[in-house]
Amino acid sequence: MPALPKSLTAAMADTVEQVEAAVDVLLPKADLREARLYEAMRYGCLGGGKRLRPFLVMEGARMFNVNPACALRTAAAVEFIHCYSLIHDDLPAMDDADLRRGRPTVHLQYDDATAILAGDALLTFAFEVLADPETHEDPQVRCRLVTGLAKAAGPRGMVGGQMLDLIAETEEFDIGAITRLQRMKTGELIAFSAMAGGILGRASPPQLHALQAYAHDLGLAFQIADDLLDVQGTEAETGKSVGRDEGANKATFVSILGVERARDQARRLADQAAAHLDIFENRAEMLRQVASYVVDRKA
Amino acid sequence: MPALPKSLTAAMADTVEQVEAAVDVLLPKADLREARLYEAMRYGCLGGGKRLRPFLVMEGARMFNVNPACALRTAAAVEFIHCYSLIHDDLPAMDDADLRRGRPTVHLQYDDATAILAGDALLTFAFEVLADPETHEDPQVRCRLVTGLAKAAGPRGMVGGQMLDLIAETEEFDIGAITRLQRMKTGELIAFSAMAGGILGRASPPQLHALQAYAHDLGLAFQIADDLLDVQGTEAETGKSVGRDEGANKATFVSILGVERARDQARRLADQAAAHLDIFENRAEMLRQVASYVVDRKA
Repeated sequence: MPALPKSLTAAMADTVEQVEAAVDVLLPKADLREARLYEAMRYGCLGGGKRLRPFLVMEGARMFNVNPACALRTAAAVEFIHCYSLIHDDLPAMDDADLRRGRPTVHLQYDDATAILAGDALLTFAFEVLADPETHEDPQVRCRLVTGLAKAAGPRGMVGGQMLDLIAETEEFDIGAITRLQRMKTGELIAFSAMAGGILGRASPPQLHALQAYAHDLGLAFQIADDLLDVQGTEAETGKSVGRDEGANKATFVSILGVERARDQARRLADQAAAHLDIFENRAEMLRQVASYVVDRKA
Repeated sequence: MPALPKSLTAAMADTVEQVEAAVDVLLPKADLREARLYEAMRYGCLGGGKRLRPFLVMEGARMFNVNPACALRTAAAVEFIHCYSLIHDDLPAMDDADLRRGRPTVHLQYDDATAILAGDALLTFAFEVLADPETHEDPQVRCRLVTGLAKAAGPRGMVGGQMLDLIAETEEFDIGAITRLQRMKTGELIAFSAMAGGILGRASPPQLHALQAYAHDLGLAFQIADDLLDVQGTEAETGKSVGRDEGANKATFVSILGVERARDQARRLADQAAAHLDIFENRAEMLRQVASYVVDRKA
């Protein structure tokens, strides 16, 4: 496995730092009686995470010369949605997970009720951030961001995918059904992340379409790699509980395709994702490298 | 206690019917594998409820000659937020309620995980509806609606109020703290509902301010009446569990002020709410009547 290029590693590390700072500034932290809510929101959003979705937002925005401050607000909004979904997903009533990013999950660190509310608050706050004139001066662009994020995160996107994920615990899912589940559960938000920079930069429809196609293949490659990590990774490497899918007897890409074919498929999807970016020529080099990163990562 | 005027009763019944129909059309109902999610969303939104918030949206919009179809979409979005908050509030980890609008709560009818997801989906979907060009042709107006709803529902509004409500179970809250809690928990969303018609109709700042002042007093009057119903109402009348606050030993307006002073205070707030509407003269007659309704209602 080739080492990842220095430039990507450095760029991703930069984004992690920038997003951490932006999230810190955006999230409320007043010393009020409800401070516990703010603390749980911060705990669920700060201190770890690859920030893949924010990186896609930032890189997409860079290609269209978007003001980085605007891109960063959009990146933070996407991360709020991602983090809320992790908080709710980890609840005892859902996946009942103890560990996330190497730390106790939000409901263990606080309590179930606070975790539910912190998730609700992050979800709501994401839209407040996007609709704010500081995110973009053109309200038409802000409305497109709100629409895109709401569709990606809502019943026809992420939440619908999570419902399917629960149903997959008791019903048989074939490869087509698993693919649809994963496209909804993680693919739509990754696709929005890749397109958000284009929306901010008023990209042309063919450009947006290329970004969407890239992100769809990237999202699927990402998910197959996640399934492989669940089978082959360690808790120390991944910072979260592993072996959960097998324990739950849940169909995954790996359980259906086997390790070798799943790995081949992830590689193929990553190559295909990169190929969609041809129209951007050199400008998309970083996004192409992310595709390799996604299948070669250890966490 | 004077009987409510026929016109208000009829207008509220009309709104209930219109909102029920609009919600039915807006909510997804495709025959997909995740249909359980859609069913739980519908179960939590349809079949009952006074639709006070939608009524405020519709009446506010009527005062500014807003296209009723646009107002109805906005009213539905507000109701999605209200219903999501009830679904999450009723969860075992929160209020652990069995009964809502005379029927089993969503987590009893489905399960906890589905109830969490249905709430998340309704919350997200509300913003998708508001940001859609069908809600208003001007993206600036749509952004204002998204911002207003997100602030009213988010950590500084409803969710923050719910956090305070949980904290009030174990900490002492005086009358000032209870007032702030209730303004956040229910007042902000009621205030947004009353202002939404003005936002859609591009009301002047003084007009919006009058609506906000009206709604703040109305919301507080509403909450005190709710506390009185919890002490004095029956499950058959209210369609939900009663006596919960006393059982939880939680401070409320009634536990602090006593029944008589609480009732007086609610009346005073209702009168004050109505007085804020003077600048609208006859156009606001229905909203004035709502203020009396709110303190005299039996459920």
